[in-house]
Amino acid sequence: MKAWLSRLHTDLVTVPSSPEELARFELSHALPDISCRIETDPSMGEGYHICRKSDGSFLISGGSTGILYGSYALIRSALCEKSMPDNLSSSPRYALRMINCWDNMDGTVERGYSGRSLFFEDGHFHYDPFRMRELGRLMASVGLNILCINNVNVHFPAQLLLEDYLPEAASLADLFRPFGVRLMFSIDYSQPMRHGISTADPLDPAVQEWWKGTAKRVYNAIPDLAGFLVKADSEGRPGPFTYGRNHAEGANMLADAVRPYGGKIVWRCFVYNCRQDWRDKTTDRPKAAWEHYAYLDGQFADNVILQIKHGPFDFQVREPLSPLLLGMKKTNLAMELQLAQEYTGHQIDIYTMIPMWRELFEELPAENIMSVAAVSNLGRDENYTGHPLAAVNFFTYGLLAWDPETDTTAAVAEWARLTYIIPAEDEKKLVNLLLSSRRVYEKYTAPLGIGWMVTPHDHYGPNPSGYEYDMWGTYHKASHDAIGIDRTASGTGYLNQYPEYIQKKYEDPGTCPDLYLLFYHRLPYTFRMKDGRTLIQRIYDDHFEGYYDVISMVETIHDLPFPNPDRDVIRERANRQLHNAKEWCDIINTFFHRLSGIEDEHGRIIYD
Amino acid sequence: MKAWLSRLHTDLVTVPSSPEELARFELSHALPDISCRIETDPSMGEGYHICRKSDGSFLISGGSTGILYGSYALIRSALCEKSMPDNLSSSPRYALRMINCWDNMDGTVERGYSGRSLFFEDGHFHYDPFRMRELGRLMASVGLNILCINNVNVHFPAQLLLEDYLPEAASLADLFRPFGVRLMFSIDYSQPMRHGISTADPLDPAVQEWWKGTAKRVYNAIPDLAGFLVKADSEGRPGPFTYGRNHAEGANMLADAVRPYGGKIVWRCFVYNCRQDWRDKTTDRPKAAWEHYAYLDGQFADNVILQIKHGPFDFQVREPLSPLLLGMKKTNLAMELQLAQEYTGHQIDIYTMIPMWRELFEELPAENIMSVAAVSNLGRDENYTGHPLAAVNFFTYGLLAWDPETDTTAAVAEWARLTYIIPAEDEKKLVNLLLSSRRVYEKYTAPLGIGWMVTPHDHYGPNPSGYEYDMWGTYHKASHDAIGIDRTASGTGYLNQYPEYIQKKYEDPGTCPDLYLLFYHRLPYTFRMKDGRTLIQRIYDDHFEGYYDVISMVETIHDLPFPNPDRDVIRERANRQLHNAKEWCDIINTFFHRLSGIEDEHGRIIYD
Repeated sequence: MKAWLSRLHTDLVTVPSSPEELARFELSHALPDISCRIETDPSMGEGYHICRKSDGSFLISGGSTGILYGSYALIRSALCEKSMPDNLSSSPRYALRMINCWDNMDGTVERGYSGRSLFFEDGHFHYDPFRMRELGRLMASVGLNILCINNVNVHFPAQLLLEDYLPEAASLADLFRPFGVRLMFSIDYSQPMRHGISTADPLDPAVQEWWKGTAKRVYNAIPDLAGFLVKADSEGRPGPFTYGRNHAEGANMLADAVRPYGGKIVWRCFVYNCRQDWRDKTTDRPKAAWEHYAYLDGQFADNVILQIKHGPFDFQVREPLSPLLLGMKKTNLAMELQLAQEYTGHQIDIYTMIPMWRELFEELPAENIMSVAAVSNLGRDENYTGHPLAAVNFFTYGLLAWDPETDTTAAVAEWARLTYIIPAEDEKKLVNLLLSSRRVYEKYTAPLGIGWMVTPHDHYGPNPSGYEYDMWGTYHKASHDAIGIDRTASGTGYLNQYPEYIQKKYEDPGTCPDLYLLFYHRLPYTFRMKDGRTLIQRIYDDHFEGYYDVISMVETIHDLPFPNPDRDVIRERANRQLHNAKEWCDIINTFFHRLSGIEDEHGRIIYD
Repeated sequence: MKAWLSRLHTDLVTVPSSPEELARFELSHALPDISCRIETDPSMGEGYHICRKSDGSFLISGGSTGILYGSYALIRSALCEKSMPDNLSSSPRYALRMINCWDNMDGTVERGYSGRSLFFEDGHFHYDPFRMRELGRLMASVGLNILCINNVNVHFPAQLLLEDYLPEAASLADLFRPFGVRLMFSIDYSQPMRHGISTADPLDPAVQEWWKGTAKRVYNAIPDLAGFLVKADSEGRPGPFTYGRNHAEGANMLADAVRPYGGKIVWRCFVYNCRQDWRDKTTDRPKAAWEHYAYLDGQFADNVILQIKHGPFDFQVREPLSPLLLGMKKTNLAMELQLAQEYTGHQIDIYTMIPMWRELFEELPAENIMSVAAVSNLGRDENYTGHPLAAVNFFTYGLLAWDPETDTTAAVAEWARLTYIIPAEDEKKLVNLLLSSRRVYEKYTAPLGIGWMVTPHDHYGPNPSGYEYDMWGTYHKASHDAIGIDRTASGTGYLNQYPEYIQKKYEDPGTCPDLYLLFYHRLPYTFRMKDGRTLIQRIYDDHFEGYYDVISMVETIHDLPFPNPDRDVIRERANRQLHNAKEWCDIINTFFHRLSGIEDEHGRIIYD
């Protein structure tokens, strides 16, 4: 068994017939000395109640999957040597706790850093049933319940998941069902046009009929399919705009088709002008999602969920919460996170996300956010996540999707305890290292919320002006004296998309939190930060500190008694992270030194 | 018939048996009203003599190929309505006038902008015999005599040209022989290791024997093979350095193998550190070729030719002549040009090279330069060169390789006259446009010899800092106040590699020719040019002028009465060039304006 399951189980050699059977299997193997009973109460759904009886035995009651989640919770407590619960009721904060795999049927994974697809190869389904069961347990053990298996960019032949490959897809759904995991498919909005229909216009009756017929066929094969995930009118994908329809019209048509079966349409809100002219100052990409969707609030069907990236750009190290997540009160929303470390180190650099997520969840309103989704960081590598320590992101994502108030340190410590049996002192070092890793990565990469100083396309390593004259709308406009885009009311007006209390927090550079400073403001390098340093000095300091922090991290990594094979992989990647951090530190500092001509006050080496 | 042959011939339906037969065919079809006799004089080799008899008939005497070249010269004169020669003797200045195709056997062409390979597809020979004959005539009509058919980066299965594919290669050689064209192959220095030999060490007897046996076999199949072209120890290719041997030892071993058959080893001198650290100031890439080869002068066998790129970098718009071409007096040398517009507009932008070549040839010493080579700009496109006007480069390369003192304007005019029947006034406009195109391209791209402000890898379009922190050794180090690398004696010392008269010409920025200024010097933006302008103003002026020039060029292009299909292609590409020139102009000016903070004196628009 892999990742945090390593201490949990012996192998599961067949697919269990139900979540309850799986729960019994897991409990009996993981807690052989503890008597546990389970009691199904369908009314409890995914929730569970754990009750310790006077004889020391436990009763776990819940819905079918609730029992499974309760069992895993109990097992995790026991294996982590935490105090066992006497009376614990728990139910998930978010109904849909989704993993989005960006797997292509040719076996590649878009933005994948853990090897090839777990599901596909060479245009076909191709998977190891054992690893599928392992994946089911990885998900169930942390309460994740939806798995979208194919890339939101639907490349042929992924359309065949709804057609010729449907029987195989149904077999996979059968395999995951006992783990409480329901499948979802990313669909191609223009798919009716593969079948003799001349349009994909959502208001065209033939199109509507095609989708209704398709939904019927698909749900006949997979009755509990969670629904369809759609990336429409984005980065070259087809969508309703082609036919002069808005996205409510586009999504609702699909929603009608899947409604009879309880299906959802998860509609991604990643629409922006990806052919922007860098000279154009009237367009500001972070404003795009709001502009495309906010006016449609209230017009989406009740089984449509808008899936909104957590920030207004695209998974940068530091972005504010997307205003769209705050502004559509009459629409079902999901927040989209990214476990895959696209801009955050490619699972070479250590980057533990839970501190970032906690910041996001704290700002997220409770009412209409019903779901969370995360782009998968899994692949066919033996350890699933490429970097063994990247598994902490999958694990803690599950815990937060269940309960966003989960204690950050406790969650990471739980992952560490389940994954490695190492001395308490070392475990503490590991947990601290993981918890600090996001801030460390942030320090040695792009400064103070500016983002995008990354190698174009690949997104690993520094390239300060790589996107500066390109069409992606991600400009910093650094000049000899200043950097940044003014996104306040006096600038692009992006900040106006937020409620007033947020506008107030960020609109004045004198009080705007440092780490968001260059996201919202254009400032001279001589700007005085709250601590008295100049902006340019703060940039130099952060980058040197970040690099020095990585030196320490790597020393710690080399000292920690990881078991093999993880040890070798972790050490090798730590050395690559060290190289990467040095590149970032030197290149970013040189870039700003060349631009500004201002020396580092501490006389550290900045290369010409 | 295509390109400049369009007015010359009817189709040639079979391969002629000899150059003389081809000459007779061409003369009789192209000049039906003129009586021409030919007389073979083997002692004249490739040279020819044309004599006009009192009866108005012509006698062309020469070696077998000399007769062919003389016939084409006469035909070109007649078709161009130039005065016909009374008594003309001519022989080629350079013995080997080579075309290097960078064609891979999978059908792709490295740095090819005219479609797929003319020779290969899918790992095999795959060609149209008609187009091979056309290619033979394109070459012979301008006196080119060597064709290397495969990429210097030898990717499998191109090794099989010396093995399983040798019979097919021999058939191709048979096809080209009557056109005076001999084949050459690029070889893989490590090829013996495909045959159970554990090394490719040139001093190892088994390696030497393998190459001798291979040469015997290859020359048995193709007795007039020109030889082997070798890219060794360069950009990841294998070579003698692997075994602690120098390049004379490496080349001479191969030279021994082909000597019995009159073969040559053409050894490319493109060796530099392509894993340079951008922080490293002790390495200066233009110095590399000299450092790797100059000390070996006199040690190369007499059938080795060192093929040296014309400039010390890599085919930039403006580079000085490579010092190696001036410094190896006891070695046979070839100058390498590039018809493929890798850094010069991808055969989308118009870039006529002959003005550049004339500058190079004027500086080239006569003694030991025996050959010229040019990377091909041909591909499977109907018009061979992607952009129909790019054919002028192939044509004029041939004329200059024969006689480097060929008049520039006359050569371009001859190409235009042969290619298009258009009114004289239009022809003049076209010729002027072509002759000015290099300077126009230079103006709107990287300024004053700095080079490399191009999109990495792809090499089309601007990216001012794209190579700045990369490993390729091509840095400009532009800062807020200055730009360039000091390559004089007080800097990297590159200039010391030249004879004193050249050092004197360039060492003082006050007298250094403007267009080479930033190649040799690091200068502040406020530096005063000879005409009184500041450096930064000159950069702005050049870029605006270059863009305005393209606007005029495009207007001219749209006015010129090209026949179709050329017209549509030329117009479409002209529009793309206009877009590209605008991007270059705006991005480069914005880059320098952001850096320097200095305004354009004329108040033209520079974007923030």
